[in-house]
Amino acid sequence: MAQKPSIPKGTRDFNAAEVAKRSYIMETIKEQFQVFGFQPIETPSFENSETLMGKYGDEGDRLIFKILNSGDFIKNSDEILKDGTYVKKMLNKEFFNVFYNQYLSKGIKLSKKESITGFKLSDKDKSYISEFLDSYVIGYQYKMSELKLPSSIKGFLYSLLKKEFNLLLKYTFDIVSVIHYIGQNETYWESHLNRLQNEMLNSFYSKQLSSRISEKALRYDLTVPFARYVVQHQNEIEFPFKRYQMQPVWRADRPQKGRFREFYQCDADVVGSKSLLQEVEFVQLYDAVFSALKLEGVTIKINNRKILSGIAEVIGAQDKLIDFTVALDKLDKIGEEKVKEEMRSKGISEDGISKLQPLFTLKGDFGSQVESLKSILNTSEIGLKGIEELEFINTAIANLKLKTAKLQLDVTLARGLNYYTGAIFEVSAPEGVKMGSIGGGGRYDDLTSIFGKPDTSGVGISFGLDRIYLVLEELNLFPATITASTKVLFINFGETEAMTCLQAVTKLRQAGVKAELYPDSVKMKKQMNYANRREIPYVVLVGEEEVKAKLFTLKNMESGEQTKLPFDKLLEALK
Amino acid sequence: MAQKPSIPKGTRDFNAAEVAKRSYIMETIKEQFQVFGFQPIETPSFENSETLMGKYGDEGDRLIFKILNSGDFIKNSDEILKDGTYVKKMLNKEFFNVFYNQYLSKGIKLSKKESITGFKLSDKDKSYISEFLDSYVIGYQYKMSELKLPSSIKGFLYSLLKKEFNLLLKYTFDIVSVIHYIGQNETYWESHLNRLQNEMLNSFYSKQLSSRISEKALRYDLTVPFARYVVQHQNEIEFPFKRYQMQPVWRADRPQKGRFREFYQCDADVVGSKSLLQEVEFVQLYDAVFSALKLEGVTIKINNRKILSGIAEVIGAQDKLIDFTVALDKLDKIGEEKVKEEMRSKGISEDGISKLQPLFTLKGDFGSQVESLKSILNTSEIGLKGIEELEFINTAIANLKLKTAKLQLDVTLARGLNYYTGAIFEVSAPEGVKMGSIGGGGRYDDLTSIFGKPDTSGVGISFGLDRIYLVLEELNLFPATITASTKVLFINFGETEAMTCLQAVTKLRQAGVKAELYPDSVKMKKQMNYANRREIPYVVLVGEEEVKAKLFTLKNMESGEQTKLPFDKLLEALK
Repeated sequence: MAQKPSIPKGTRDFNAAEVAKRSYIMETIKEQFQVFGFQPIETPSFENSETLMGKYGDEGDRLIFKILNSGDFIKNSDEILKDGTYVKKMLNKEFFNVFYNQYLSKGIKLSKKESITGFKLSDKDKSYISEFLDSYVIGYQYKMSELKLPSSIKGFLYSLLKKEFNLLLKYTFDIVSVIHYIGQNETYWESHLNRLQNEMLNSFYSKQLSSRISEKALRYDLTVPFARYVVQHQNEIEFPFKRYQMQPVWRADRPQKGRFREFYQCDADVVGSKSLLQEVEFVQLYDAVFSALKLEGVTIKINNRKILSGIAEVIGAQDKLIDFTVALDKLDKIGEEKVKEEMRSKGISEDGISKLQPLFTLKGDFGSQVESLKSILNTSEIGLKGIEELEFINTAIANLKLKTAKLQLDVTLARGLNYYTGAIFEVSAPEGVKMGSIGGGGRYDDLTSIFGKPDTSGVGISFGLDRIYLVLEELNLFPATITASTKVLFINFGETEAMTCLQAVTKLRQAGVKAELYPDSVKMKKQMNYANRREIPYVVLVGEEEVKAKLFTLKNMESGEQTKLPFDKLLEALK
Repeated sequence: MAQKPSIPKGTRDFNAAEVAKRSYIMETIKEQFQVFGFQPIETPSFENSETLMGKYGDEGDRLIFKILNSGDFIKNSDEILKDGTYVKKMLNKEFFNVFYNQYLSKGIKLSKKESITGFKLSDKDKSYISEFLDSYVIGYQYKMSELKLPSSIKGFLYSLLKKEFNLLLKYTFDIVSVIHYIGQNETYWESHLNRLQNEMLNSFYSKQLSSRISEKALRYDLTVPFARYVVQHQNEIEFPFKRYQMQPVWRADRPQKGRFREFYQCDADVVGSKSLLQEVEFVQLYDAVFSALKLEGVTIKINNRKILSGIAEVIGAQDKLIDFTVALDKLDKIGEEKVKEEMRSKGISEDGISKLQPLFTLKGDFGSQVESLKSILNTSEIGLKGIEELEFINTAIANLKLKTAKLQLDVTLARGLNYYTGAIFEVSAPEGVKMGSIGGGGRYDDLTSIFGKPDTSGVGISFGLDRIYLVLEELNLFPATITASTKVLFINFGETEAMTCLQAVTKLRQAGVKAELYPDSVKMKKQMNYANRREIPYVVLVGEEEVKAKLFTLKNMESGEQTKLPFDKLLEALK
């Protein structure tokens, strides 16, 4: 029956010292949230799957933890049996053969460099395969109608073959490339075919089942539940609605150093107003929190989606906004020439790249950077609007002054680009501390429309608790006093003495002193060791003599000093 | 795309006022936990399934939320197909026919009262069915060996037929009873058979799959994760280890008024000492917390497992401890005679029941109740030990005195009987408040042995946050000051004025005043309404004149009083 106990990978236990340090950070953030007028809300740990699915892209959907329905969660095993049997029949050698022949007949060749796993498709290749699948599926659809299959199965097969394009590509290319290298070795082919059939069947079952056997999923972030909350409770809420929320979220990411499957997010957002004063206040809020944490010298980087859109417009690459931004983002790491090379490879024109020249040399303070940007963006309405917004925020912050942080324009900043529509924020730790961003956020103009409430602008920021923790630890910035440890331990010399002690302990506790009585009258050395190892600063010794004299011997564990005191003096000494 | 947003049944959103009230309770509890020397720990929201499963009984296992493995969670769909096809083949008409005939041939009759759903089996009936299954399974095992099935499938079938006894009983009795009432109507039988086959197949798949596709489960309580924590970290822990933990737990219970699928538990436990002083301290802790919450007059009921064991011993019903306790527990509700009737029906002898007579009239204070108990238990060593423990705790508490709670012996108290080995606690709300227990706990002697650390005694208590909340609400005991709302709203008259306001807001916030600036310069009426509805007690008006004169018009929203102040006076008024 005995098990070797462990916890799931990517999760953590926290001991008393860790809980105290984490609370210190969260309480500090919470205090500033409140001072800035944000109100707390809490949402359930799990939401209905349809609330979360489809909100974070395909990768996000994959990383959402799904909760199995309770009880006999399979409701239609007979149907599953039939579906499975049919899919197995369909994913046969013929399918792969036809595909293989037709694909290779297009004359596509794989270079050595593009090995099985690292294989990437060109757009041309994709269209070949799409064509093939179309014709194959049409053929199968015809066969299906002959077979008088239930339409749900037909529908699924069609989606497996056509819409689940990526799934098929993964496996068919595996086959194609294996054969390409191995030669037409029939045995090898057959064994691979079996494996692939099985893998595809597993994929089929997993996809088929997950929506049937799971209707709830663990929160993936706090933003989507917040949007759901706003729409659901819109009649109880006063807008603009300033809310904060500090709760754990869960992601099925591969765990690695500093990345966990359960972690806290600390978010503040406002919905219902487009005023740029809110961006100004969020910069102040970052400054207030990090100043309160004594973490001085953080950099609040700011950018604006409109500027990125403007640049893309100016260089004629509106459709390559993400490629362009990803390349630009690497400027610090790989340098100007390599960035240009990457842009060229993504199809950005030489003319466009030359227009970007001022970007590569963007230097100096906010003002001079903005001047450079204006020279690039002078023909772009949206770009100039972005500059105007940036300037408003920068001017306001210059007037209001930050306590310890600095605000910096960073045109390469693009986090959550598909999401943000205006300002984009990211906070980096003080120079010298190696750590990714410790906070981020931005403005999103239409978050709640997915839940049926359009035209509700929002803007918000988030604090990265785990990373802030690591930074404070590295810089030794946790106050020594935060660990909520016991102040005094009463040594237990036996039943009578213990009762006297417990009376004193009770009174001390009523006065707010963290006090304990060792529960057993074991050897004194053991009790003293306990006090030592738990770093309890004082012990009280009450033996027979002290009971009679109504005195308490107070020992300072650091200095070793001992004094005999009546209770009122003891209370005074420990308060 | 628009969805009507909702949350899963049994879960809740909390608005700002609710969060504030819940925090108030939790902070009050936490403060007392710390004053009593308990240290905080936190454990992950989900544990490995094997950590949780089997720790809460069959019912508990069913109520644990399981998390679906990520990615393509089905690893062996081919095997599942084969298993399913075989099970479907096996659960055939013959099986039900044979069972039906053999069962009815035993001459068992169902009374009308025992309808399909409420059907209960006598021990005699159970043994008939068990016999039948044995012979049937042996027959099938023989067939199975002929069929050269993989041993995993055989094993499963055997367990489905034999060990999953309850599952089978559920369905077979459904059939038997349907036929019994409907008469031997062949068509009815066939349609039922199909439905039942399908249900059993669903059960089969659900059981087969859940361990294959889920390896993690949401925390069901804080006690088992605590036991796991203690064993896993035993080398880092100083024993006796006093820990507290306040985290949500999840149960797939049918939601109903006051019962949720996600709720907080607030637990304090000590492991590693058998000292009864700990029970004494837990009584004090309950008193301290409820006194701090101003919830005066709660009753801390106490009992001892050893006393219940002693009574069962004395009346010769050691094997009927639970039946006996369940009956006794109803004394208040159904009265002495009905309790005795129930005991008789459970097979407790008339002689035994007469020995219990003093229990039925147990009245008066702790001392006189203990005297009555002694008269019953004078021949039971374990019973007398239980009395001794109770007396120790009661005497200590009488010496130490409680602030507002009272300690009461309740021999009918038996919560978690299978679990507790010594003291059992339960707290009930002050008289007049209709509410189940608002706290409970007890001593358990061997919790950590399931994880490989035997002989570690523990004792602990829990606070029921949701119920305490309802009680405080009903008695109007939440302090008016706890809602963390904004103190002052600055009205926005335009860009220039807003900037002046934001400077003042910034300084107020730095002084700790919860201050806001309305972000948009919309109509004043709208802004004033916003302040009103959010119950913000003060607004500040800064128009063109005030900007020039460097003054702030402060308006008290309740009295309507307005005064013009320089900033330092404003700060003074709002601090």
